[in-house]
Amino acid sequence: MTRTVIESKTKTVAIGFDEPFCVIGERINPTGRKKLAAELEAGDFSTVERDALEQVACGAMVLDVNAGVVYNSNPNPNETEPPLMRRMIELVQGLVDVPLCIDSSVPGALEAGLEAADGRPLVNSVTGEEERLELVLPLIKKYNVPVVAISNDDTGISEDPDVRFAVAKKIVERAADFGIPAHDIVVDPLLMPVGAMATAGRQVFTLVRRLRDELGVNTTCGASNVSFGLPNRHGINAAFLPMAIASGMTSAIMNPVRSVEMEAVKAANMLMNHDPNGGEWIRFSRVLDAVREGTPFPEAAQAAAAAGAGRGGRRRRRG
Amino acid sequence: MTRTVIESKTKTVAIGFDEPFCVIGERINPTGRKKLAAELEAGDFSTVERDALEQVACGAMVLDVNAGVVYNSNPNPNETEPPLMRRMIELVQGLVDVPLCIDSSVPGALEAGLEAADGRPLVNSVTGEEERLELVLPLIKKYNVPVVAISNDDTGISEDPDVRFAVAKKIVERAADFGIPAHDIVVDPLLMPVGAMATAGRQVFTLVRRLRDELGVNTTCGASNVSFGLPNRHGINAAFLPMAIASGMTSAIMNPVRSVEMEAVKAANMLMNHDPNGGEWIRFSRVLDAVREGTPFPEAAQAAAAAGAGRGGRRRRRG
Repeated sequence: MTRTVIESKTKTVAIGFDEPFCVIGERINPTGRKKLAAELEAGDFSTVERDALEQVACGAMVLDVNAGVVYNSNPNPNETEPPLMRRMIELVQGLVDVPLCIDSSVPGALEAGLEAADGRPLVNSVTGEEERLELVLPLIKKYNVPVVAISNDDTGISEDPDVRFAVAKKIVERAADFGIPAHDIVVDPLLMPVGAMATAGRQVFTLVRRLRDELGVNTTCGASNVSFGLPNRHGINAAFLPMAIASGMTSAIMNPVRSVEMEAVKAANMLMNHDPNGGEWIRFSRVLDAVREGTPFPEAAQAAAAAGAGRGGRRRRRG
Repeated sequence: MTRTVIESKTKTVAIGFDEPFCVIGERINPTGRKKLAAELEAGDFSTVERDALEQVACGAMVLDVNAGVVYNSNPNPNETEPPLMRRMIELVQGLVDVPLCIDSSVPGALEAGLEAADGRPLVNSVTGEEERLELVLPLIKKYNVPVVAISNDDTGISEDPDVRFAVAKKIVERAADFGIPAHDIVVDPLLMPVGAMATAGRQVFTLVRRLRDELGVNTTCGASNVSFGLPNRHGINAAFLPMAIASGMTSAIMNPVRSVEMEAVKAANMLMNHDPNGGEWIRFSRVLDAVREGTPFPEAAQAAAAAGAGRGGRRRRRG
């Protein structure tokens, strides 16, 4: 069975058909977060630190790190993003022990992140665009790391799922030319907002199954995208995730600091027989009890993690 | 595409591959409800009335009616259940306009219900047991109604999904011998508690897909069974339902008076492209807003239904 192995200095996470769903925390990303962007330009990493600790406490198994700030003082990200990425990677891996996902559209930032990261990080991302294939795949080969492959190409994002499948297939084949195996490609079939495109959910469920059956690859997506523009987004996300998991999706880049979505993932793991004896569900239910009594989810999760470590549980945290 | 048509005097509901998930309200059932059982023996139908109105307001599209009381004054259900079933059917169809599901293991009660019910009710159920096949299928043929087919036979409930599939296939074939088409069979593949059998969820997801692809039948299940014995049952049910829907399940016998589960079903409908323009989701989100502000779900749903009728919405209620 396909397994994509991601590692920090001390911890291994496998994305796989027979593994619990891999939650990749999306919070450390200044895109659309003006306050965080300004903090980063000013050298203030307090939000990054808090996001790292909270996401891991809430159940993130991998943390995405994106340093995509356009500085007011220097509008060239090719100059500013690589050193910022290096610094953020070093900071985050000093704080938490989960593997990282290096997220950038700037090749220099990907390489800076790859140089700085311990273990075997995931790279986010390559696309089917020729220029991206030629820039990113050599890095993936050189560092022997897995990569997220997004199903768009030089013609853009197709609304036709067959085209998106064909783009994914092309990326897998091009990667093979570089000696990169399919199990190191995690395909993002591109999840559109269901409010803009009513077939968006079904398309992805079908695509995930094909990608798994025909290409043998793991899959991921930006989960919250599905609910963009609609009311009660958490309710949509919390139904989408179990449906994607039942369809064979093996990871998502998502906000783990939301208990509704994490509850859906934990329940789906148990229903897929990826939570032996329901131990993780029972542990998580106690956190939810505290949330219902008014404790914010990250606090409740941190308290449970600390109690678990105190009892000699498996989930010891450093420091 | 397979469609199972169920009708009241004024309303048609289709269970189908291209239809919104059919929520069959389970509440009108004295099994395990001692207070309700005592009320029914005493001729008090106030709980039945409330359960009928609340379930429909909360989104039940069909109501299950079970009259399975063992009277203290007469322990023979063959004598007591048929008249009680008739009375309950008449009462419920006088109150609400949704189609009914006549639920009994007593053939006389099924026939009494079939005589009393307007339109085209669903019958719950036949099994693969020889005696049941011979007793129930002639009734189904005589009244030209659809039937729930539960995948157990004279050897009991198999833990092997292949056996459960074979039992379903046998029932479909036997029904065909009686001239009953596959689209009038709604198979219940038997959902076990995941706390007792860790593969229970996956088995059902796989079975539902096979039943749909290979036999072309609609499917149902007693949804809340999956979470029996585990903490935070609603969270498990609310993940199970979208997973079952993504796997192709087309109905469930469930408690619609629980907003968490109904939210999951409504979101899944939209994600399956069975809620054009998200209109139903947006309407339901307003009900959830009221629930979050402290209004009990049935009240909030009833208020929204009344407001919708007042605005000339499609969901007019009689009376």
